[in-house]
Amino acid sequence: MGLFSKDIQTMDDLFVHTLRDIYYAENQIVKALPNMIEKATDAQLKQGFQSHLAETKNHVKRVEEVFRMHGVEVSAVDCPAIDGIIEEADDVAGEVADKQVLNAALIAAAQAVEHYEITRYGTLIAWAKQLGRGDCASVLQKNLDEEKAADKKLTSMAEASINRKAA
Amino acid sequence: MGLFSKDIQTMDDLFVHTLRDIYYAENQIVKALPNMIEKATDAQLKQGFQSHLAETKNHVKRVEEVFRMHGVEVSAVDCPAIDGIIEEADDVAGEVADKQVLNAALIAAAQAVEHYEITRYGTLIAWAKQLGRGDCASVLQKNLDEEKAADKKLTSMAEASINRKAA
Repeated sequence: MGLFSKDIQTMDDLFVHTLRDIYYAENQIVKALPNMIEKATDAQLKQGFQSHLAETKNHVKRVEEVFRMHGVEVSAVDCPAIDGIIEEADDVAGEVADKQVLNAALIAAAQAVEHYEITRYGTLIAWAKQLGRGDCASVLQKNLDEEKAADKKLTSMAEASINRKAA
Repeated sequence: MGLFSKDIQTMDDLFVHTLRDIYYAENQIVKALPNMIEKATDAQLKQGFQSHLAETKNHVKRVEEVFRMHGVEVSAVDCPAIDGIIEEADDVAGEVADKQVLNAALIAAAQAVEHYEITRYGTLIAWAKQLGRGDCASVLQKNLDEEKAADKKLTSMAEASINRKAA
């Protein structure tokens, strides 16, 4: 998509553009998670990030499946939103001196990522249904359900132990 | 906060840093919303953005109140996440040719903003409680409740009419 031309003419164009946005985002998250796994010092959190990395790799495949179902080329567009969210996570993590506080900061950063994905998948599913692509919506729903579950798991870890250890 | 020093030593430092992050974000949203109001061509959506602008100005004041309650200076730190989310909203809006499709794109952009705020306030409230600042948590909860309500209202508008008109 060109940044200086009105390339999005139809709702279908907007759906495909946003699919390319989340495809870029999922790929950036695959790149960012190993760094978060390395930084986490809480065993449960480290394990949580590891299993979410495996899930995220699968999300990339599901988005590729939706591209194919919809008959469009698998490709990405730059997504300044996820770049900013990941940049902010790196900035904050770099400023935290204490390991327990860092675990709390990593959870907050990961939940910002999850919420970005939750909003994008929510939108994509609504648009897919409106476009009569319930089949694409079903595949995207699987990713959304896993992002929501990951977010809840992070909240539970934070509230059950990590915030208490950090405080 | 310096980007190249470990300025965050304690959970309280992390709480204040994140308060400064959302303070920056709320102020950027106050600046971004008039542009979205101008671009929206659906009367209900335009009105929704207008009332959310009034709410957002009030959120800024509530965050300032929390700074004062907590006895720290009212100040902002750069928040690359909200900058990225707003940049992406501008990019996409600039690429959409059709007015009905643009309304759908504006809703998606606004919901990405809402979700960023929802995750940050959720985190801040949990941390405030952990730090024994239930008073700060109560004020932040008011902002969170309004962000969640704004997000739901956008979903309703999208599903009730805007997505259908766009498709």
